[in-house]
Amino acid sequence: MNLGYLCRMKTQKFVRESRAVSSEIVLPNDTNTLGNLMGGRLLHWMDICAAISSHRHCKRIVVTASVNNVSFDKPIRLGDIVTLEAHVSRAFTSSMEVFIDVWVENHSTGERVKHNEAIYTFVAVDQLGNPISVPEVVPETEEEIKRYEGALRRRQLSLILAGKLKPDSATELKALFTHRDES
Amino acid sequence: MNLGYLCRMKTQKFVRESRAVSSEIVLPNDTNTLGNLMGGRLLHWMDICAAISSHRHCKRIVVTASVNNVSFDKPIRLGDIVTLEAHVSRAFTSSMEVFIDVWVENHSTGERVKHNEAIYTFVAVDQLGNPISVPEVVPETEEEIKRYEGALRRRQLSLILAGKLKPDSATELKALFTHRDES
Amino acid sequence: MNLGYLCRMKTQKFVRESRAVSSEIVLPNDTNTLGNLMGGRLLHWMDICAAISSHRHCKRIVVTASVNNVSFDKPIRLGDIVTLEAHVSRAFTSSMEVFIDVWVENHSTGERVKHNEAIYTFVAVDQLGNPISVPEVVPETEEEIKRYEGALRRRQLSLILAGKLKPDSATELKALFTHRDES
Amino acid sequence: MNLGYLCRMKTQKFVRESRAVSSEIVLPNDTNTLGNLMGGRLLHWMDICAAISSHRHCKRIVVTASVNNVSFDKPIRLGDIVTLEAHVSRAFTSSMEVFIDVWVENHSTGERVKHNEAIYTFVAVDQLGNPISVPEVVPETEEEIKRYEGALRRRQLSLILAGKLKPDSATELKALFTHRDES
Amino acid sequence: MNLGYLCRMKTQKFVRESRAVSSEIVLPNDTNTLGNLMGGRLLHWMDICAAISSHRHCKRIVVTASVNNVSFDKPIRLGDIVTLEAHVSRAFTSSMEVFIDVWVENHSTGERVKHNEAIYTFVAVDQLGNPISVPEVVPETEEEIKRYEGALRRRQLSLILAGKLKPDSATELKALFTHRDES
Amino acid sequence: MNLGYLCRMKTQKFVRESRAVSSEIVLPNDTNTLGNLMGGRLLHWMDICAAISSHRHCKRIVVTASVNNVSFDKPIRLGDIVTLEAHVSRAFTSSMEVFIDVWVENHSTGERVKHNEAIYTFVAVDQLGNPISVPEVVPETEEEIKRYEGALRRRQLSLILAGKLKPDSATELKALFTHRDES
Repeated sequence: MNLGYLCRMKTQKFVRESRAVSSEIVLPNDTNTLGNLMGGRLLHWMDICAAISSHRHCKRIVVTASVNNVSFDKPIRLGDIVTLEAHVSRAFTSSMEVFIDVWVENHSTGERVKHNEAIYTFVAVDQLGNPISVPEVVPETEEEIKRYEGALRRRQLSLILAGKLKPDSATELKALFTHRDES
Repeated sequence: MNLGYLCRMKTQKFVRESRAVSSEIVLPNDTNTLGNLMGGRLLHWMDICAAISSHRHCKRIVVTASVNNVSFDKPIRLGDIVTLEAHVSRAFTSSMEVFIDVWVENHSTGERVKHNEAIYTFVAVDQLGNPISVPEVVPETEEEIKRYEGALRRRQLSLILAGKLKPDSATELKALFTHRDES
Repeated sequence: MNLGYLCRMKTQKFVRESRAVSSEIVLPNDTNTLGNLMGGRLLHWMDICAAISSHRHCKRIVVTASVNNVSFDKPIRLGDIVTLEAHVSRAFTSSMEVFIDVWVENHSTGERVKHNEAIYTFVAVDQLGNPISVPEVVPETEEEIKRYEGALRRRQLSLILAGKLKPDSATELKALFTHRDES
Repeated sequence: MNLGYLCRMKTQKFVRESRAVSSEIVLPNDTNTLGNLMGGRLLHWMDICAAISSHRHCKRIVVTASVNNVSFDKPIRLGDIVTLEAHVSRAFTSSMEVFIDVWVENHSTGERVKHNEAIYTFVAVDQLGNPISVPEVVPETEEEIKRYEGALRRRQLSLILAGKLKPDSATELKALFTHRDES
Repeated sequence: MNLGYLCRMKTQKFVRESRAVSSEIVLPNDTNTLGNLMGGRLLHWMDICAAISSHRHCKRIVVTASVNNVSFDKPIRLGDIVTLEAHVSRAFTSSMEVFIDVWVENHSTGERVKHNEAIYTFVAVDQLGNPISVPEVVPETEEEIKRYEGALRRRQLSLILAGKLKPDSATELKALFTHRDES
Repeated sequence: MNLGYLCRMKTQKFVRESRAVSSEIVLPNDTNTLGNLMGGRLLHWMDICAAISSHRHCKRIVVTASVNNVSFDKPIRLGDIVTLEAHVSRAFTSSMEVFIDVWVENHSTGERVKHNEAIYTFVAVDQLGNPISVPEVVPETEEEIKRYEGALRRRQLSLILAGKLKPDSATELKALFTHRDES
């Protein structure tokens, strides 16, 4: 009970505790020659927002470890208001998987439309840059649980692609090709 | 012969024809609070370099479609000279997979050490932003062939993750879990 | 009833509907020679955040009309996470008074401390830059009501300072020097 | 006489001694989506120019303490030449009130038109950030004297608004509501 | 007389009429890895200041035609206040030679020390980018006359270096190697 | 032989060993009000590229000593791909003359057209900013030899213009006005 609760406070965090939000207006400086937001600029905004989120999870210096997947389906235009929302979806020892959801607002109705999502991984380090462990993540909502579970498959996949894990050992990922359930 | 050769010129390109190179010095403006290059800044440089490479492949307006994978293993320090080299590894109708290799130079020996690599996807569009087809890629060297072949697996994987392809249909990727050969 | 409710929807908005939030990390690029966040940089961030807030209130193009008061009491340091939160406190025909609250997070506890607050005024304009009317503001919480009421005094004061209103006509403001109640 | 004169040199400065001038061209990077200079950008330029002016007054490290009032009446357009001119109007122990006058040049006649004015307050600090006293200001021209005298009213007003001064004690400001003379 | 005076007004301008001044503080963003102002940054500031000066001379769109000579003898440090002062020294049909003098202020005495000088050439163009003629320059002070006269030698030299003038025709420049007088 | 070869390795470098390449896309942020690349921006890119080249020659900290000549003949447009290529053309004790060739690509054919060239001088310094000697340059191609030989004339010229060399002593430069051969 009490003692256990205190321990949990130190080593576990809810997903919502790492929430970070940032809104930006697309200015001329941010656009390509078609007048749309440049991919590189959005990647930079995502990096800042995800860094704040992972810092809120672990209260340590954090550095970008990888960008796992970002897709840009529709252009974002000059003058659009872009809102980024980041959460730590799962932690592995010293690394944290961060989801960044990107929303764009309709100018006249103000309705926010989900534009795309991205997955970054951050690592907590000490002043010398050595990795240090971070609290575990406790998912609560249905989506948080889905992302938490998918994180293991994504991690196995990235270890395989980096040649650090044999496909046979990636049991979670392998299931993807036998079961029909989806990430 | 002659005629065939001319046709090839229009619809096929060698990997080396899309080579783009850029060198940058890490300035105070580019660093985080540890004095190292920020991930978001490197992502931005990669985006520019990959855009030039894919433009050289297709001579059209190109827009970032996705960032497939980027990992940041070691920090890059203030004052380091960073060289980015991008090539189109494979094309699918209107999209191009671009590899970006990042090198950092040793200050006193000048030796260039491979730092990391990234994969971006660009799409060629017309003035209205509609996708248009691009030349095919002809790989020549061993590494170019390896990357060309891996591109199909990566594409299937990203379609599966986006829910646009059933795992069963991803024959190339499935092989990864039965054969023992590696990406 | 129903009809009245619909009318209210068009011409009135709650303070919370204009809420805009943005978090930033203080990077080397943002600091002065003491290693603290430059005033000019924070003013720029506030301007963007307040522009988004006032746009959310009126769904129109908005332009900065004035900065009424901003104070910088304590320095904000390199690496600090700064969160800006903006709300429209009151509207007058085509102008909107926007409050921006600035918070800084403690690195190890994550506790957010109120750092300072600023007041900007924005005007809604059409494509030619002519002012157009905006919805009224409906304050709900105690603080929203306090800021809503103070807005009139601040407006009278700024009109007096600009020589557009005679001190005698500023009844609200005059009260400040006779009654003992406080803004 | 002589001695007194030398003392004055150390502890008093003329307004013109703190004059700082800066001219800028409005580039695409500085504009909002209407093609006009962004308020936040002008606030940033003002901050730099006022910092130089207050540094010239006291020869110490200076930090922005507050922005008292800035209004943006007419838009400044892309390509316009903007000239900022800053002077310290009055000093109070360690703080300095700085007026920034902004001029825009007519493209074909070259005539400079006063565009707006702003008031910032700076504080002189030592290397640890602690306030240190600055020379007094000696106004000479009619306008310098007017601004010098108005500074006390503005200071009382800002102390009242911050809840640090009772309205009754603000004798200078109170006069504004009884006498008819104007700031 | 009167008529002649009016004509002169249109086709001739004094050097002082093209004066442009700008002061900047060297911020972290402007420095190299030694903590000194980067050459490229100063070149950029000079370009802006010289563009304003040449615009003031001709009231037309101006574009940089060449940078003739800039030397950086001593480093300028982080936190230094740099003042640039530009004047048109001479005009040739549509081109204008602009001198930029750079001053750095001593932090404690406020004494301004001449740091270096640069020579840029600008060309006046119409909306289509075609060169158009500009007023002549009338030098008044001794230094203005010296720079005015040196401009012809510099122009001949640059034409020779560009292969557009035969050394024999450069009578002014040739004199440099026979007479003993100095630029 | 062997020993001599080793010595050469330390004190001599081929021109090609200092090659630095950088490609940039002209973005809205880089343009003037005509939509063309600003001169000051190109000067900044050249400075970075030349700094990398001179660093590759000497493996030391390098600082910009002077910009000798840069001309901008044709405008470079928004969206153009600009490639800069820098080489050290000759070294004098601690200073290095660097040539920067600038190329612009045709959008539809991809053909690279030589746009302009610039000459910068860099100096190698130690951690305290004191000059240190650099390897000599060994030119190989015809153009490298031509630039190597021209470097001496340019150096004499710049020393004369700076009043540090008497025209009579500039034997190389004097020849320009007696012989008919050309730089």
